Amino acid sequence: MAATLAALTNQQVRLAARPSGLPKPGDWQLTEEPVAEPGPGGIVVQTLAISLDPAMRGWMNEGKSYIKPVELGAVMRAGGIGRIIASSNPAFAVGDVVSAGTGVQQYLSVPAAELKRAGVFKIDLRLGSVHQWLNVLGMPGMTAYFGLMDIGQPKAGETLLISGAAGAVGQTAGQLARIKGLRAVGIAGGPAKCEFVVKELGFDACIDYKAPAPAGVPRWDPVRAGLKEHCANGIDIYFDNVGGDILDAALARLNRKARVIICGAISQYNNEGGAVAGPKNYLSLLMNRARMEGLVVFDYAERFPQAVMEMAAYLKDARMKSREDVVRGTPADFPATLLKLFRGENFGKLVLEFAPA
Amino acid sequence: MAATLAALTNQQVRLAARPSGLPKPGDWQLTEEPVAEPGPGGIVVQTLAISLDPAMRGWMNEGKSYIKPVELGAVMRAGGIGRIIASSNPAFAVGDVVSAGTGVQQYLSVPAAELKRAGVFKIDLRLGSVHQWLNVLGMPGMTAYFGLMDIGQPKAGETLLISGAAGAVGQTAGQLARIKGLRAVGIAGGPAKCEFVVKELGFDACIDYKAPAPAGVPRWDPVRAGLKEHCANGIDIYFDNVGGDILDAALARLNRKARVIICGAISQYNNEGGAVAGPKNYLSLLMNRARMEGLVVFDYAERFPQAVMEMAAYLKDARMKSREDVVRGTPADFPATLLKLFRGENFGKLVLEFAPA
Repeated sequence: MAATLAALTNQQVRLAARPSGLPKPGDWQLTEEPVAEPGPGGIVVQTLAISLDPAMRGWMNEGKSYIKPVELGAVMRAGGIGRIIASSNPAFAVGDVVSAGTGVQQYLSVPAAELKRAGVFKIDLRLGSVHQWLNVLGMPGMTAYFGLMDIGQPKAGETLLISGAAGAVGQTAGQLARIKGLRAVGIAGGPAKCEFVVKELGFDACIDYKAPAPAGVPRWDPVRAGLKEHCANGIDIYFDNVGGDILDAALARLNRKARVIICGAISQYNNEGGAVAGPKNYLSLLMNRARMEGLVVFDYAERFPQAVMEMAAYLKDARMKSREDVVRGTPADFPATLLKLFRGENFGKLVLEFAPA
Repeated sequence: MAATLAALTNQQVRLAARPSGLPKPGDWQLTEEPVAEPGPGGIVVQTLAISLDPAMRGWMNEGKSYIKPVELGAVMRAGGIGRIIASSNPAFAVGDVVSAGTGVQQYLSVPAAELKRAGVFKIDLRLGSVHQWLNVLGMPGMTAYFGLMDIGQPKAGETLLISGAAGAVGQTAGQLARIKGLRAVGIAGGPAKCEFVVKELGFDACIDYKAPAPAGVPRWDPVRAGLKEHCANGIDIYFDNVGGDILDAALARLNRKARVIICGAISQYNNEGGAVAGPKNYLSLLMNRARMEGLVVFDYAERFPQAVMEMAAYLKDARMKSREDVVRGTPADFPATLLKLFRGENFGKLVLEFAPA
């Protein structure tokens, strides 16, 4: 198969520098190389689409985290969906569609010994589309599922608040909370996202954190005003994707024994110099005997198959909807597309598609 | 009994103003009044000693907390130990020693209907001294016990870090951790306290947060240096009594699945304007899948008797030691004595004694 592969050009995005603040064009390097021969038992995957996630910003930083940083000069890490275009492994046939840590590149060549490390597994497009396999059936959906169910310990009748409600994790967590009998209140930016969250996804309410001040209201704080209205009886579970001021506003309204799921802090990832604003209201945890706990979805990998089946059933009977913001392009479009996330410009789970399924 | 009581003068300290920053003399009012007749079924308690606690600062603030604020003009709230000097209640005999919410005053007159609200219960001085009943067998000891055992979920071989290690909660939590098979590392201010914590209480190590910089060390941070040395394998449980920079230093060294017990934040209670510094390193909870949980000891009241018996047994066989910093005086000495806590000048659990047992 070497002859065929050598004819293909693999366009890649590599990390060229560790950014301070928002990633700049110069932090990336666009490279091209032939597709490597994977050897006996290996496979070659053509990347159909990759997932663009806030967590990517953290992977670009040096230093200890829940996962190793991307090394300078390496292909940028990304989860993706691809199609097998070459295989000498009996477990994979040409044409199979797989989930894998494809990276930001058009082709992934995986020697047999690295199949596990690359996280390659076959997916069933009858359960959901390629885009949904990067969303509700993929990492964001698993994050929503295990964050809510394991850390959140939801009880019917409770109130869940979730920031980034129109985003990948938010949309699924809120809908799952509704399915489990909770009230779901979202926070999102702008009237279009808020309308979508309530009318399409069925949240009980959505707070527009960008809402302009009504006439005659000094010191307007749309989040605090919205929480007063929509979480009048307090918050039992806060699923935090943003950190910063919104985390503080949520902490101020916790109920007794509330649970705060720390899933991300997108408002803080691009601070110059890497400083993070700590939650000034953290003593609300003391006052309310509440807890705040960090979530890393990889810890639940063994239970993904069962969660995927549950979520696929909700998709099938339309109790769960999903929305992806799909940008069609090449790896060269990755740097600009990633910035949509940090500007809040994506509407739904952000996907960069290289080829149709 | 009215004639006898009327002859007694009850000196009291009342809250005169809500302080900003450290409580000032003008925030208090010293009053005197006769001892009220408690009526049928009531009792009169002579206060022997009261407990002075960091939490008192919070009770002086307006606004929602885990307990109602002390009202302006009211006798300052305090837990104390007293002796029954008058009783028409068959459950209490003159001479009995009780624990009660005495307030900062020399006498407490409790009508029958208010015995429960005042938290009056008989104590056994064979289990511990008056001072120990305000320390290891009282609220600080119960705080240490339920914080460590219920929120901390300790496992033998783990490392506990505790700030305020020479203080009331700290000394007991660290010794209890040792009894349960953990390594205990304390943080305290000054070599005398650190020596006491290690040599007397048997902690494995104690970090002096006031330690001066060794020669030739720029940007000296004694806590971070101490943690690097004494928590080289990370922290499994951090019992936080102080907040601020020390909380951030501890967060930076959490182990996977660590538990942070938020018991207090004495470094933040007297900030002007009430602003609190949030933990900048809170995303360590995410990186390490750790949790941070607030502790209010009153929630465990039903289990106090059992915990007291366990702690009394440790005192008896000298596996548990206690140290109280006893100031002898009158209610008039309360305002100045309380400030010892916030200046870190107390050495052991701070007690204000009005009369010997």
